[in-house]
Amino acid sequence: MLTRRGVVGGALAGSLLGSPLAAALQTDRRRPGFDIASPGDAITPIFVDAADLPGVRRAAADLAADIGRVTGTDARIVHDPRALPDRVILVGALGTSPLIDHLVAAGKVAVHDIRGKWEAFLIQTVANPMPGVKEALVIVGSDKRGTIYGVYDVSRMIGVSPWYWWADVPVVRQSRLRIANGRYVQDSPAVKYRGIFLNDEAPCLSGWTAKTFGGMNAAFYGRLFELLLRLRANYLWPAMWNNAFAVDDPANAPLAEDYGIVMGTSHHEPMMKAHKEWTDHRQHYGNGEWNYATNAPAIRDFFREGIDRNAHNEVIVTVGMRGDGDVALESSGSLQSDVTLLEGVITDQRRIIAEGMGRPAEQVPQVWVLFTEVYKYYDAGLELPDDVTIMFADDNVGNLRRLPLPSERGRSGGFGIYFHMDMHGGPFSYQWINSNPLPKIWEQMNLAHRYGANEIWIANVGDLKPLELPIEFFLAMAWRPSDVGKDKIAGWTHAWAERQFGPEHAAEIAMLAARYAKYNAWRKPEQLKPDSYSLENYREAERVCDAWRELERRADAVNETLRSDQRDAFYQLVLYPVRACSNLTQMYVAAARNARFAEQGRASTSAEADEVRRRFHRDHDLRDYYNHTMAGGKWDHMMDQTHIGYFDWYPPGTDIMPPVAEIDLDPANGFGVAVDGSARSWPGYYLPPELPILDSLTREKTFIEVFPRGAGPAPVTVTADQPWVVIEEGKAFGVSTRDRRFWVDIDWNAVKTGRSEATITVEGHQTVTVRLTALRASAQQEREARGASGGLTGAFSLAAARFDRSVAARGVRCEPIPDYGQGDAAMSVFPVDAEPFTDTANAPRLEYDVFLGESGPYHIDLVTAPTLEVYPGRHLAVAVGFDDAAPVAQAVFTPTTRAAQDFLGEQHAANTAANARTMRFTLPVDAPGRHVLKVFMQDPTIVVQKIIVHKSALARSYFGPPAWASGGRAGS
Amino acid sequence: MLTRRGVVGGALAGSLLGSPLAAALQTDRRRPGFDIASPGDAITPIFVDAADLPGVRRAAADLAADIGRVTGTDARIVHDPRALPDRVILVGALGTSPLIDHLVAAGKVAVHDIRGKWEAFLIQTVANPMPGVKEALVIVGSDKRGTIYGVYDVSRMIGVSPWYWWADVPVVRQSRLRIANGRYVQDSPAVKYRGIFLNDEAPCLSGWTAKTFGGMNAAFYGRLFELLLRLRANYLWPAMWNNAFAVDDPANAPLAEDYGIVMGTSHHEPMMKAHKEWTDHRQHYGNGEWNYATNAPAIRDFFREGIDRNAHNEVIVTVGMRGDGDVALESSGSLQSDVTLLEGVITDQRRIIAEGMGRPAEQVPQVWVLFTEVYKYYDAGLELPDDVTIMFADDNVGNLRRLPLPSERGRSGGFGIYFHMDMHGGPFSYQWINSNPLPKIWEQMNLAHRYGANEIWIANVGDLKPLELPIEFFLAMAWRPSDVGKDKIAGWTHAWAERQFGPEHAAEIAMLAARYAKYNAWRKPEQLKPDSYSLENYREAERVCDAWRELERRADAVNETLRSDQRDAFYQLVLYPVRACSNLTQMYVAAARNARFAEQGRASTSAEADEVRRRFHRDHDLRDYYNHTMAGGKWDHMMDQTHIGYFDWYPPGTDIMPPVAEIDLDPANGFGVAVDGSARSWPGYYLPPELPILDSLTREKTFIEVFPRGAGPAPVTVTADQPWVVIEEGKAFGVSTRDRRFWVDIDWNAVKTGRSEATITVEGHQTVTVRLTALRASAQQEREARGASGGLTGAFSLAAARFDRSVAARGVRCEPIPDYGQGDAAMSVFPVDAEPFTDTANAPRLEYDVFLGESGPYHIDLVTAPTLEVYPGRHLAVAVGFDDAAPVAQAVFTPTTRAAQDFLGEQHAANTAANARTMRFTLPVDAPGRHVLKVFMQDPTIVVQKIIVHKSALARSYFGPPAWASGGRAGS
Repeated sequence: MLTRRGVVGGALAGSLLGSPLAAALQTDRRRPGFDIASPGDAITPIFVDAADLPGVRRAAADLAADIGRVTGTDARIVHDPRALPDRVILVGALGTSPLIDHLVAAGKVAVHDIRGKWEAFLIQTVANPMPGVKEALVIVGSDKRGTIYGVYDVSRMIGVSPWYWWADVPVVRQSRLRIANGRYVQDSPAVKYRGIFLNDEAPCLSGWTAKTFGGMNAAFYGRLFELLLRLRANYLWPAMWNNAFAVDDPANAPLAEDYGIVMGTSHHEPMMKAHKEWTDHRQHYGNGEWNYATNAPAIRDFFREGIDRNAHNEVIVTVGMRGDGDVALESSGSLQSDVTLLEGVITDQRRIIAEGMGRPAEQVPQVWVLFTEVYKYYDAGLELPDDVTIMFADDNVGNLRRLPLPSERGRSGGFGIYFHMDMHGGPFSYQWINSNPLPKIWEQMNLAHRYGANEIWIANVGDLKPLELPIEFFLAMAWRPSDVGKDKIAGWTHAWAERQFGPEHAAEIAMLAARYAKYNAWRKPEQLKPDSYSLENYREAERVCDAWRELERRADAVNETLRSDQRDAFYQLVLYPVRACSNLTQMYVAAARNARFAEQGRASTSAEADEVRRRFHRDHDLRDYYNHTMAGGKWDHMMDQTHIGYFDWYPPGTDIMPPVAEIDLDPANGFGVAVDGSARSWPGYYLPPELPILDSLTREKTFIEVFPRGAGPAPVTVTADQPWVVIEEGKAFGVSTRDRRFWVDIDWNAVKTGRSEATITVEGHQTVTVRLTALRASAQQEREARGASGGLTGAFSLAAARFDRSVAARGVRCEPIPDYGQGDAAMSVFPVDAEPFTDTANAPRLEYDVFLGESGPYHIDLVTAPTLEVYPGRHLAVAVGFDDAAPVAQAVFTPTTRAAQDFLGEQHAANTAANARTMRFTLPVDAPGRHVLKVFMQDPTIVVQKIIVHKSALARSYFGPPAWASGGRAGS
Repeated sequence: MLTRRGVVGGALAGSLLGSPLAAALQTDRRRPGFDIASPGDAITPIFVDAADLPGVRRAAADLAADIGRVTGTDARIVHDPRALPDRVILVGALGTSPLIDHLVAAGKVAVHDIRGKWEAFLIQTVANPMPGVKEALVIVGSDKRGTIYGVYDVSRMIGVSPWYWWADVPVVRQSRLRIANGRYVQDSPAVKYRGIFLNDEAPCLSGWTAKTFGGMNAAFYGRLFELLLRLRANYLWPAMWNNAFAVDDPANAPLAEDYGIVMGTSHHEPMMKAHKEWTDHRQHYGNGEWNYATNAPAIRDFFREGIDRNAHNEVIVTVGMRGDGDVALESSGSLQSDVTLLEGVITDQRRIIAEGMGRPAEQVPQVWVLFTEVYKYYDAGLELPDDVTIMFADDNVGNLRRLPLPSERGRSGGFGIYFHMDMHGGPFSYQWINSNPLPKIWEQMNLAHRYGANEIWIANVGDLKPLELPIEFFLAMAWRPSDVGKDKIAGWTHAWAERQFGPEHAAEIAMLAARYAKYNAWRKPEQLKPDSYSLENYREAERVCDAWRELERRADAVNETLRSDQRDAFYQLVLYPVRACSNLTQMYVAAARNARFAEQGRASTSAEADEVRRRFHRDHDLRDYYNHTMAGGKWDHMMDQTHIGYFDWYPPGTDIMPPVAEIDLDPANGFGVAVDGSARSWPGYYLPPELPILDSLTREKTFIEVFPRGAGPAPVTVTADQPWVVIEEGKAFGVSTRDRRFWVDIDWNAVKTGRSEATITVEGHQTVTVRLTALRASAQQEREARGASGGLTGAFSLAAARFDRSVAARGVRCEPIPDYGQGDAAMSVFPVDAEPFTDTANAPRLEYDVFLGESGPYHIDLVTAPTLEVYPGRHLAVAVGFDDAAPVAQAVFTPTTRAAQDFLGEQHAANTAANARTMRFTLPVDAPGRHVLKVFMQDPTIVVQKIIVHKSALARSYFGPPAWASGGRAGS
């Protein structure tokens, strides 16, 4: 095993974002500091009071073990304050550790800036803290979890990843561990309760826990609690699919209390009772109906049990009621009667809470979750006690549905967010792999933070794995949002990669981890179909495959250079998702080629069918490696989730290979020709083949493909009738080596200004002629177009972030969110809580220099994020205009589109599947030539990804035309 | 070879519909008659004047050969009137045969009832017509074709099918051919010009003619002209796909004139010029543009050539102009300017016609075809000379778009119909096989006839084969519509079958021929998709497959018993289409099972994929037999049309096997359960399995299927927890023998009145429980429901023709069109030209006794034919009501639906693909129980196929729920 020489720091620089110890990392070995370990010396022991809180004692023990993981020797734990060594780590919480309290009282440690705070801590080196002790590293927390977080911050600093066990991240051996002398303070986290929800936990988490722990018992939850604390979380909704946390293992709830984890139950399980407890025993409760209108006394008994058994635990009690299981409440007659019923339910629940907990209800944290249909009760005016936290659920796909209005923000219970990184249900399920790019999480959760929903953040994380990265990011944001501003996401990801794999490959690994999730968010793997990406237009499917292939190549290259002890972690965190998603995308595209090639009569149809089969089986091989080989089979079942062949929101029982077609080949058949921009082939179609028009401003090239249609060879020659046509053979898209591509380009110096026509002739045992048109700009057009986007003809895209000018207004400006969405970045309005601009023309705007080949009406499609209207009553608009013409404003949501965007609505499902919503404007253009396209961002919370400019109907594609600028080729 | 003994008649009784000779068939050998042949005697010779019209002489020669086909010895042709034998057949047209004219003048033959008429003829036995002749059979026509038709009527009578060559129908040998003495008169046909259009003729007809004749030359056309005349047609639009009738073989046009065929050119080819003549030589015509606004003088030259070369031929000149090829005219600016331009075109054309033909234009038959967009010029008021026939084209799928209004009918040129039995184009192509059931042709062409569009009928027949049956029917209707009234279609088909195959199997063969076309019209083969018929609801796909399989079984059985010399004819006329369409349907359904079984994780998924492959290859085997083996390969290429895997209206270049999926089976998997009415399977879905409710009134049964999901066996037991549940094992749908079906029925005597619940348990290595609900009617409900349709719950269908009462009004009544559409018959209003009923409640109506299980609103879906609004300005309405409530009227066409039904519109395409249009009414029902559902047919030309009654959303299916009546099982 390699060990890293030297002191802590340097190598880990930048990897401790969110930790006050980041400041301790400038240390070099000549600078004085506190040695936790030092070559030749005994490992510094840890003192923790034997009477301190169990969670604190346990964390101290973890630190001792972590030091052992790094140095090879565990630190000794000392409980006797009278037998302290001369160098010691002192761990304790204010008020529960007499020694710490004594140090504070003695003025050795100043705690004014953490005392009384929620989960704050202080780490300080202290010389001569007490007689007989020369130096101490004091880790003191304002409370239990503050102390624990402090302890784990030291673990993290010495190189123990929170994921050391949960993702097999190897610990790098070091013999010297030194902290620069100093005082390191961590204030309270931004969000009070930060947690995850284990959900949709079969077949993966269930299968894995059954095999590994014998169930979701304390052995499992202990591992989980430790992870949560190392990730600075404090809150958990436990697994509830046929699981009941409190009764499956009676040790579970006390264990949570010991660790310091605040337990809750999910959005639809009130009063600390799992729904399974109801379904298993409903016959013992009155008439057995989960209906407060008909069975209230029995349901109250049920509620009471949940509260009574948690009387001494730190919990957040879910209040309210949904239907029987995770479904909507059965109506009692009218919306108003339902509201009245629910108000009664909550009143009763609070009485039970107060009785069971032995203190006023307002002293017990409670949450009411507005999920799906529950919004309507709130909107209808349900009166909720001020101390109950109102939790807004997203749309199941990571788009917030609501934020607190200023008028609401005063409530003592505050607001929370229930966010999804995994879904089993509508609008579609995504349970397999990580498809949550961090910029999207940031964009929405930043709104939550800025609009004051900071009481609770909880993320539905499915089986937990393989969502390691977005889980940590979500919790990091909740901890200290300033560490992960939109421009720091890449840096944070880099630091994350460095924590797991060291600095050498951190940049590449961060790129890989960010990019596979980004690609997955173009279209979630479960939502992929053979025709998701266009085969015929813009080489779209080909470009997408190229992107994945390149990502896979780079991931493989990293894997080759990693130490062998890093490969299990790399496989689960990066390599598996990259390979599997690349393979999956290429499998679907091969299925598309199979279908298209069958239509075109290509002999290679069957080769594409074989390719689909090969990739289908490779998917299983990759999964099997994860389950059975990686880490010695430690994670068996964790990748059991089916993900191919969705035909319902419900996951298929078994993966279903995309169906493949066969054709009969007549050996006498000759060849066929397909052309860029068309799905058809020739001979065999009544319209003549015609290539997309080539344009001297956009300088795109085009191609034809020639392929055998029979079993035999089909030699052809490809020639053009004009000298300015440049034909060059390339590689056809697909697995066949017999299919041929011929690139068609123009020698623009050789062609006259204006329109020129040419014919390309494919000659073999038959002849196919393909028409080609070239448009060469005049000298004046070229001058006008210089530096502008667009061309003489055709549709083009503008990457929203590639603006030419950004004009701020009243301190409000359009800024890019790097790496958001389809392109390099997307544009939104900052600050996000700015007041809207009702005066359109004065709104902050983006300007794009464009060259338009024609006059007449143009369509401007703004491709925005599919975010929702989070601010009731606010008009949400954007406007577009050319030059100095009055801009045309359009509200994202009209009463009609609002309905269409509604939760689970078909249009919203389509938008979220594409992670994009398109707004179309149609504007007159009175003359061809150079223009300025202006986008006026009237309201914050809109995110613009790209702008598509076109005159006629767009060719079918997923992304629209590529972005190209005058004089240059489009990137892939 | 078998020979039939005895005289003509008896055996052929009923097979000569449309012939005056039908009356000559009562003959027995003891009754006196004219012997064409008689054992021991020489064959009776045929006299035809050497100077008579060539067509008459040719027909007489055909008769001589036909007599040879029957007797083994050709009749001798005699030209010398002075050397007549004592028994002779005298053939001649009035006015061109001196001998016939002499007989008439001598009073031997009275021709008062045919003279001067169009295509009339007389067949008469005459004793001692002239010195030296003892007896003669005189065949005299009012004109050339009248005579020819008379001659061929004798051929037909002696047993030579018009299809003897064109469908290899064997001629039965007979030694005695006797016609009962008498006078047989044929009046003029109902429709003046009756013809076909060879179209969409590649690859089949083109390939076949190239191989057989070396092209579409006179050798080919001679064969075709003979067929047309034998079928009593007189008009032809020749093949024009890269073919030019007049120039491909200069002998073609004179040959048509010789035969007596009136030539035309298609709807879009004016002035007797093929469009190919333009495309081949456009550079010689002015600027080469097919644009009358820019190139009129040259186009006039082009027109003139077409007329001049036909100066002496009998033609109908197509006038007007469409675009360049079979596409719409390029607009000259506005509709009004286009109308003016077209009026100018026609004026010029008529001047050219008059000059070229040497007689006034009004003496030359002309036709202007309202095809697709051409209607708009007519509707815009284009002024057309009165003598030009206006031809209304259908919608390309056999639905008329327009009929002459009374105000229009006075025009001297009259009206014609352009009808499709084959289409290459929108709304979809159907070029492979016969999908034209005769009742549908009858229903629409009867309108044409009754509304006075009787000047020209022409049918687009694609490659001609395999449309033999509908072609003959269409021409028979045009000849004498009274022979083929709606109640005579089955009889006509029987006679047709008898003519081709003799009486023994005629009934069965007629059934087969009618039924395969009927099934094909449910959904044309080209429009079939795997999911066309529902797998999960009503066992729909299974019933459709059963129907096809039964048809195939019966066709095979007939084939076994036919003489070997009949089998080629049987294969091409019946067996091939039955087998191929049965195979095709079953292939698609197997593909549907493959996809569904994959979703259900059935181990049999791969067996269904193999079944798809097997049937795909069988399709090609059946085709290859037709092309290469049948009739010694005489029809090679005639079945070259691709027909599997349409992905465009344009036929695929090669047949594409429906894609098939694969799944990976875990050998450890157990079994799965699927239930009637659901696509899902268990274990594996979150909602519990539930069977359709069983109802004591409808007495349907239901089923579950149990299937292995792994490679190994999965033994199960299936039990119910209630004694009144009857479980019986049957055969699962699909090819697997390991999948099992368990029928679930109720012992209605053992179950209590009202609702009862039961659970069916499938137990193996896991357990699945299925819920079942039985509803038993009370004694009173049973009494009320007796004889009524419907039940306690669920949707049901009423076959429109199974009415309980039909109430006529003012002599107008609802009558069934037997065998029309989805069921046994459909209902329409007769007479079809009755005046509409604006007073809804007084309209003729149909009454249906129904039993409705619930109160509240019910939906009544009238499933009508997709016929169009043929009568401009007429309100087209139908009304529905329960009991004595005021009926609710609905117009079939509103401005919105009219637009949606428009030519090539998406809704019209869907309706024509389904051969059905659904009109939904929603009516209140105030109490459950027995009701009378009344359908008021306010306007003629509506055809109602079935009525679906339902309260909630209909389950997805093609046909809707089966029709069931109280107390009985639904038929398959």
